Amino acid sequence: MNQKELDNLCVSAIRATCIDVVNKAKSGHPGMALGSAPILYTLYTKHLIANPKDPEWFNRDRFVLSAGHASSLLYTMLHVSGYPLSIDDLKSFRQLNSLTPGHPEYHHTKGVDATSGPLGQGIAQAVGMAMAERAVAAQYKDGDKIVDHYTYVLCGDGCLQEGLSQEAISLAGHHKLNKLILIYDCNNVTLDGGLDLSFSENVEQRFLASEWNVIKVADGNDLEAIDKALSEAKLSQDKPTIIIVKTIIGYGSEKQGTSKVHGNPLGEEDGKHAKEVYNYNYPAFEIPEEVYKHFEETFAKRGAEHEEKWHKVYAAWSKENKEDAHILENAIAGNVNEYFKEEPKFEETNADSSRVASGKALNELHNMIPFIMGGSADVAGSVMTKINGGTDFTKQTPNGRNINFGIREFEMASAQNGMLLHGGLKTYVGCFLVFADYMKSAIRMSALSNLPAIYLFSHDSIAVGEDGPTHQPIETLAMLRSIPNVNVIRPCDSRETYAAWKIALESKTTPTALILSRQNLPLQNSSFEDVKKGAYVVEKANGHEDVILLATGSEVDLAVKTKKLLLEKGVDAKVVSMPSTYLFDLQSEEYKKEILSLPREKVISVEMLSTFGWHKYSAHPYGIDTFGTSAPAKDAIRAYHFLPEDLCDFVLKVVK
Amino acid sequence: MNQKELDNLCVSAIRATCIDVVNKAKSGHPGMALGSAPILYTLYTKHLIANPKDPEWFNRDRFVLSAGHASSLLYTMLHVSGYPLSIDDLKSFRQLNSLTPGHPEYHHTKGVDATSGPLGQGIAQAVGMAMAERAVAAQYKDGDKIVDHYTYVLCGDGCLQEGLSQEAISLAGHHKLNKLILIYDCNNVTLDGGLDLSFSENVEQRFLASEWNVIKVADGNDLEAIDKALSEAKLSQDKPTIIIVKTIIGYGSEKQGTSKVHGNPLGEEDGKHAKEVYNYNYPAFEIPEEVYKHFEETFAKRGAEHEEKWHKVYAAWSKENKEDAHILENAIAGNVNEYFKEEPKFEETNADSSRVASGKALNELHNMIPFIMGGSADVAGSVMTKINGGTDFTKQTPNGRNINFGIREFEMASAQNGMLLHGGLKTYVGCFLVFADYMKSAIRMSALSNLPAIYLFSHDSIAVGEDGPTHQPIETLAMLRSIPNVNVIRPCDSRETYAAWKIALESKTTPTALILSRQNLPLQNSSFEDVKKGAYVVEKANGHEDVILLATGSEVDLAVKTKKLLLEKGVDAKVVSMPSTYLFDLQSEEYKKEILSLPREKVISVEMLSTFGWHKYSAHPYGIDTFGTSAPAKDAIRAYHFLPEDLCDFVLKVVK
Repeated sequence: MNQKELDNLCVSAIRATCIDVVNKAKSGHPGMALGSAPILYTLYTKHLIANPKDPEWFNRDRFVLSAGHASSLLYTMLHVSGYPLSIDDLKSFRQLNSLTPGHPEYHHTKGVDATSGPLGQGIAQAVGMAMAERAVAAQYKDGDKIVDHYTYVLCGDGCLQEGLSQEAISLAGHHKLNKLILIYDCNNVTLDGGLDLSFSENVEQRFLASEWNVIKVADGNDLEAIDKALSEAKLSQDKPTIIIVKTIIGYGSEKQGTSKVHGNPLGEEDGKHAKEVYNYNYPAFEIPEEVYKHFEETFAKRGAEHEEKWHKVYAAWSKENKEDAHILENAIAGNVNEYFKEEPKFEETNADSSRVASGKALNELHNMIPFIMGGSADVAGSVMTKINGGTDFTKQTPNGRNINFGIREFEMASAQNGMLLHGGLKTYVGCFLVFADYMKSAIRMSALSNLPAIYLFSHDSIAVGEDGPTHQPIETLAMLRSIPNVNVIRPCDSRETYAAWKIALESKTTPTALILSRQNLPLQNSSFEDVKKGAYVVEKANGHEDVILLATGSEVDLAVKTKKLLLEKGVDAKVVSMPSTYLFDLQSEEYKKEILSLPREKVISVEMLSTFGWHKYSAHPYGIDTFGTSAPAKDAIRAYHFLPEDLCDFVLKVVK
Repeated sequence: MNQKELDNLCVSAIRATCIDVVNKAKSGHPGMALGSAPILYTLYTKHLIANPKDPEWFNRDRFVLSAGHASSLLYTMLHVSGYPLSIDDLKSFRQLNSLTPGHPEYHHTKGVDATSGPLGQGIAQAVGMAMAERAVAAQYKDGDKIVDHYTYVLCGDGCLQEGLSQEAISLAGHHKLNKLILIYDCNNVTLDGGLDLSFSENVEQRFLASEWNVIKVADGNDLEAIDKALSEAKLSQDKPTIIIVKTIIGYGSEKQGTSKVHGNPLGEEDGKHAKEVYNYNYPAFEIPEEVYKHFEETFAKRGAEHEEKWHKVYAAWSKENKEDAHILENAIAGNVNEYFKEEPKFEETNADSSRVASGKALNELHNMIPFIMGGSADVAGSVMTKINGGTDFTKQTPNGRNINFGIREFEMASAQNGMLLHGGLKTYVGCFLVFADYMKSAIRMSALSNLPAIYLFSHDSIAVGEDGPTHQPIETLAMLRSIPNVNVIRPCDSRETYAAWKIALESKTTPTALILSRQNLPLQNSSFEDVKKGAYVVEKANGHEDVILLATGSEVDLAVKTKKLLLEKGVDAKVVSMPSTYLFDLQSEEYKKEILSLPREKVISVEMLSTFGWHKYSAHPYGIDTFGTSAPAKDAIRAYHFLPEDLCDFVLKVVK
């Protein structure tokens, strides 16, 4: 068999297997899988450096299937490439508890570098990976000997329609991420029909406008052209590269080139027809030995050799740079414990807003932990995300640890996901709380992918003041708390803020959102240690507990003040600070009962935000279930009845 | 005074007033206001057609300040233009209950055509306005005599960084919205510093790539050039136009051209300095009579004349097209009552999925109500948003009522907001429920702007099946329900689905989200009329009520089946269908007690989604508080314990 015949056999085997996989599941998206098969075949056999025997090898090239619906292709590639994914796994595509779910899931299937499916987010995460690659390498002496790889992404038309992709490519172009290579499977078909129903862009021009390098491949079946394009892309020194490959959706199917083959299995007959087109004569799920052998001799061999060489280099490097190596190992493992020494001290007069407290904590922690990096969406000065005297992360100063994400919240969150998927950094991103709305899906992705992302959200209530209802969160905390596996912490003062930072940094599989005030917050009788329990008593009742005030963040001070007023009226209140409902829910029933020691009817939750979700703990949640208003903070607070007298009146009514 | 002197005086008066407004409030964003003043001056005095005496006139040009933070400029313009906004209103900028809130609010201040502030959404809504202008005109015989106006938008750098803007401009270019004119105040400065911190795009090229007409103005103080650009833009026949105007942020300030003047008042001294630069010598908040007079003679006169002429044309048109005129008047008022005749009938064997039921209802309603229009984000065939045999809305067929929004969920929702702001249509948009995440902020904007948007969200639980956790909503319903003024309706069968559509269409100030199943749902003993009460008894207890099963959507059938099993075990359950917690919360206490007739401890809510929010009604919510899984629907349902036996076991435990 000559090389051309072997190539044909391999590509056909991949395509045939995709058909079998989707047919067996009776579910899936064969269209793009069949169109893109030659692209991934070329990428894996000729370029991608990764080791199927050690899928987590730190210096591997990353590959993200942004068009996650083409998962049958990725699984087939992983199978023939020697990853631990068997034919039986392929046969249980999209079945309960299989290793081959409908869309690729990070940490679930070895060789999958990112969870994808929600369109645009694959590209957006890949940008973060490429940023991390550059940043990690730059943090260490001779770091580029240790971290030096490409990030590849495959996307379809859908990803480029999502606005998120523009944020991503704009940021990538701005940062000149030359080791990011985006392959665009351009088949001109979407689920509802031809792309011309909804898309008239000149994609090449759009990428040129964002300072990308553009390479075009006219025929998606032309392996040589694809190979050449990838080789050229890898040479780019100052721009990310897009390779635009014209493909045919559902190649081989009788319905090829139409939306009919986008989201439906080909079925028995059409599958047979396609295999005839490929001139491929093997039974379903049978892949000729030559195919495995070829991948073994190309992809697997290359990966193993590179990794072996890398280990040698690493051994020498770590010997010469002991301290750096120790830091890098901590960074990759996400270990921060050794950096935390003792509980921080605060002046009794401390009344920093929690955004300021967060900024101070961050700056201190940044000095202690050498691998923290982050930034904001153009509100560094308001959300206090900046390292004072720090350097901006740019192409020229890749060791800078302040990132300017621009006014691109969704990409900022996705890039953080990508940085964490890459590994080697602790990261944080920040913006105003209300704009968490712009990044909801990325926060969900952090949670679903078990990434310990850190979100700093300041301006956390109507106390935003003058900016008015468009900028005042009401239901935003409910939104965040409702996402599974998200730890929302709303600290009441500087001490709780620092504790929240510690919890966030120690987390390994749960994202944390720190909810920060714009306005000043006096130091309470708060507990550094108890924040991790989610809730604790901040002011005991003086005698018999009549009522519990259950407050978070800025409202803890309100509750403490109200307690005093209540006492004058003969009502004895206990005040509980509940920075995190997430952490509280994880405590023992015993602890929960100790804290919420009265029946729900005697518990009044207090939050200057929506009451949605608070009925779990309180029969009488005190909050705001309408939109806010533009006014100086103190006037807005008064108008919404969040003065001690107001709360006192409410409590008295409840008690009576 | 010659024209040039008058122009100078007017522009200076506008700038000076912006300075005064922000200084007095001690809060606001003077930077862009000062830079953009000559742009709006030229637009209002030379081009914009609107009548300050009748701000709601239907055929006015629309103007959207996408950079809502420059609100001081808009309010100043409205004041000098003769809108009902006094100097005292300007003096109470950003104060409680004033007509001049921090960001422009639709329906709050006359002359404000859209709520803006969250960046990108102004442009995104304006695209919808321009679509509506074309669509409404095309629905009627000689409709372009009645509806024929421009839509202008002013944006800054921030709006163009948001990915949403790319979705918007891509869609606008695709639809060749030639009467959409975007003015880009390009001052190269953002809140955190120079634009070059985060942005390297060639904006001209990006817009050319999206099939826009690009005009450049090199000097934002060159009134003639701005005027010429606007004149030229209005002539475009087949492309939307962007006018890129180079401006100087904070023009006149000692800090002009820097981020220091972005979000802070100039203060007394610098304000004085700026006024000296303008050579403007009037006391604070004093605007010379010549200025008012000039606006009166240009803007106000032009608007009044145009409206007068229009009323004549309209009178003649409506005489000749009585039926059309009646429809248009209904459409503008949003009246649909006359179209609903009688309750629809359903076969007892009906078991349509609610997405199919919704598609059928939509098609029927579309035939009855002549001004319904909508579409989906490339999932028309899955969410059933299509009018069968209908025409696509395109430049060539502007009377088509099926809109292909492309894979641009956020823009789809924003465009709907814009269409409703424009008026003359009932609209709907649809996609998979989980992707409501991509449009959260636009849904919030519908609610905040009191727009009766209709969202169709199908694939509403883990019963999505094979697509897996990235595509399975868990917390999405909680997110939607937590937004103030959003009516989330999750119907249990075809009858409730039709009723939900009726409620959605009848709404005038509240957006409605219809939550639709992928899987089939048998017809229940449901009530068409009671859906509007939010909840009602769908199956009475046989004798003494032991327990209440409180279910929504697909879980009503599960509850009904469970009731039978429970009866065998000696437990007598009442089943309540609760399609809308929003509507239920609006009912009388008496009605609520009638429906939820047992204490909360005996109420079990059932929803195959997050329990977040259900504790309000139920002490024992039955749901899913983790992410989903990829498996055929029936397997996923079994794995998450949503079979009647599972629920029966749970209820027995609760009761005992």
